[in-house]
Amino acid sequence: MRMVDLIQKKRDGLELTDEEIHFIIDGYTKDIIPDYQMSAWMMAVCFQGLNKRETASLTLEMMHSGDIIDLSAIQGIKVDKHSTGGVGDKTSLVLGPIVAACGVPVAKMSGRGLGHTGGTLDKLESIPGLNIMISEEAFVKQVNDCQLAIIGQSAHLDPADKKMYALRDVTGTVSCIPLIASSIMSKKLAAGSDAILLDVKYGDGAFMKTIEDAKVLARTMIEIGESLGKDTRATISNMSQPLGNAIGNSLEVKEAIETLNGNGPQDLLELCLQAGSHMLVQAKKTDSELTARQMLEEAITSKKALHVLCAMVKAQGGDDEYIKHPGMFQKAKEVIAIRAEHDGYVKQLEALSLGLVSMKLGGGRQTTNDKIDHSVGLVLNKKIGDFVKRDDVLVYVHTNTGLSEELKNEILGAYHFTSDFVTKPILIDEILS
Amino acid sequence: MRMVDLIQKKRDGLELTDEEIHFIIDGYTKDIIPDYQMSAWMMAVCFQGLNKRETASLTLEMMHSGDIIDLSAIQGIKVDKHSTGGVGDKTSLVLGPIVAACGVPVAKMSGRGLGHTGGTLDKLESIPGLNIMISEEAFVKQVNDCQLAIIGQSAHLDPADKKMYALRDVTGTVSCIPLIASSIMSKKLAAGSDAILLDVKYGDGAFMKTIEDAKVLARTMIEIGESLGKDTRATISNMSQPLGNAIGNSLEVKEAIETLNGNGPQDLLELCLQAGSHMLVQAKKTDSELTARQMLEEAITSKKALHVLCAMVKAQGGDDEYIKHPGMFQKAKEVIAIRAEHDGYVKQLEALSLGLVSMKLGGGRQTTNDKIDHSVGLVLNKKIGDFVKRDDVLVYVHTNTGLSEELKNEILGAYHFTSDFVTKPILIDEILS
Repeated sequence: MRMVDLIQKKRDGLELTDEEIHFIIDGYTKDIIPDYQMSAWMMAVCFQGLNKRETASLTLEMMHSGDIIDLSAIQGIKVDKHSTGGVGDKTSLVLGPIVAACGVPVAKMSGRGLGHTGGTLDKLESIPGLNIMISEEAFVKQVNDCQLAIIGQSAHLDPADKKMYALRDVTGTVSCIPLIASSIMSKKLAAGSDAILLDVKYGDGAFMKTIEDAKVLARTMIEIGESLGKDTRATISNMSQPLGNAIGNSLEVKEAIETLNGNGPQDLLELCLQAGSHMLVQAKKTDSELTARQMLEEAITSKKALHVLCAMVKAQGGDDEYIKHPGMFQKAKEVIAIRAEHDGYVKQLEALSLGLVSMKLGGGRQTTNDKIDHSVGLVLNKKIGDFVKRDDVLVYVHTNTGLSEELKNEILGAYHFTSDFVTKPILIDEILS
Repeated sequence: MRMVDLIQKKRDGLELTDEEIHFIIDGYTKDIIPDYQMSAWMMAVCFQGLNKRETASLTLEMMHSGDIIDLSAIQGIKVDKHSTGGVGDKTSLVLGPIVAACGVPVAKMSGRGLGHTGGTLDKLESIPGLNIMISEEAFVKQVNDCQLAIIGQSAHLDPADKKMYALRDVTGTVSCIPLIASSIMSKKLAAGSDAILLDVKYGDGAFMKTIEDAKVLARTMIEIGESLGKDTRATISNMSQPLGNAIGNSLEVKEAIETLNGNGPQDLLELCLQAGSHMLVQAKKTDSELTARQMLEEAITSKKALHVLCAMVKAQGGDDEYIKHPGMFQKAKEVIAIRAEHDGYVKQLEALSLGLVSMKLGGGRQTTNDKIDHSVGLVLNKKIGDFVKRDDVLVYVHTNTGLSEELKNEILGAYHFTSDFVTKPILIDEILS
């Protein structure tokens, strides 16, 4: 078999066999197939697509390119959750504890952030002492003990995806649905859960710009999961504005804790309750989403979910006093209020721009080697549909480096106003299964 | 400017500016842009194409990536000729001398063969002593002295094309019309002629499989030439069977000499007269193609063209006695006749298969490092439209290594018969200008 023939085959719109897809992924992972052939092949895939069988086959090959995590020693049906990422997305920090509190084991491997989207690991590391690199054995034990662990992805998990992702990033092949779907699903499947809940976001702050693309991506991932016998569902959610109010690492952890205390922002809570109720059904804790929702609400009001988060933090070497008393988190030197320059309803709020401002304040990484400042970021005081009077605070900027005129203008420019009444956007458009 | 953005732009079907195309070709030639980005970009070009302006701009950038040959010291209008290559294509060896004999200076840089198509340089090197690597200065002097020189392409001519061609070969991006057109035209333009005649072949033994593709390629190259102010014309010719009867280096040189002696095969002669008459018009020797044709015929009957070839061979250090007495060429050890197994009209003759047989006999290269045996090859005794009786000779195989059953069967398999009368195929379908 020659790679050039397989590139041509895909370029000409023909279907690749399982053996051919194995040849490509195995050869690329082992450095036998060079980058220049892989990038040409991936570009051909961007144009010709992959059918259901090819996408499943690609995912399986990527999944088997490295370690497969064995979670069989954990009792119960393990449900993993994955979000396609967005600005202010601290869902895992709320959803993990509330679902775990209802008796579903949550063994989650997470990633770091890059660019305008934050990563769950970076957020967790704002809790002093918390260790995200623990052994597979300790990981399994922790989930059996306290139902919840969120750790870093093993270095040997899905090496094919690591290489392919880095190459896609520099060859214009990132926004290709079968490649996105196989990248996400191969990692999730290698991480060993029994069922998967996907949160596919669309809008300005997300990878998928339109709801149509988000649905195609969700459908593609569900098909992959099903073809490999894993119960897979997806929420299609709106990222036309940041989720919740906080953007930035410790600010988002504090917002997650508030939510577990019953005082969180409505949109974040609602997304967690809807996604979580599906996870309880997937884990066969109940067959009614309504009952599941009540169980989750009870986990919040009883503080059971908060206790699970404390237990997890403690088990991973973190100081759980920070969870009990969020006032302990290190604060930024300054909090600067950005005020509205005129009256009106907020009709649009650019999530992407605000994510980039938080990154530039030091809250995110421009390149993978950048250090993160956990205390900085933004807290939104006004969101889409809110009526704003001149001089009302739009955003509180938490900063250790002042605020340049340029960044201030970027924040102001992210807000768009109208004099007409604006309804709040729907957060979850659809749930696919 | 970032290459990844330009890849994305082309992937999304947008038009690239001249500056952007400069950035790509300049960066790639200087090894600043890596192969994996270039291959992704070229694959995007395969799908989205390049418009007229982009193709001209790409050609110009490639042309300027290395040396530009200055032929201004040669008197008269220099007309170059390029064939897209095929099996048994010895046109340059006939066309060069007959056109030069009519007073048109022919300063031709040529290439080597790879795979099933032979290269003019390899054919010329079957003449003992002939040197194809001569200085630019000597090249110009020779054309002024004897109107004709055919030499190897300078090592510094169009380095962008050398890199791009090697990469296309292994990334499934060879058969892409704007990339083929810019590859051919950038080399021709860098080689410094005033006008260009292209012979674009189609059919089994050619790069373009259909007449439609051949016409699009020809039209694209004519547009490039015109946009850069060079008179460019193209013959669209049929390569459904080999051109002439001889396939193999010295065998083809001998057939070219026979043609210059007035005893050549009809199809080869006709192609040379038609293409040549356009070249005379392009060189403004006459404005009538009919007059031009008569001038060319006269160059053959008077032996003027043969004398020009002798002069060229001598000037390049070769022994011109071989041209005067072609019986001197070293013969292969054996000539094996392949005979028909039944009666019938030849309806199809696979040029590609016969080209590959000649290569396997040692007459061509499988890889660029292979040595060539100049004496071996095939001489066809029957072509499309001929009536064949059982035991008639189809092909004479000139070989130094015997003939395996496998190769014999490949030759027999290249002939397809029918009991119905078959007309001879049209050689030149159209001339575009």
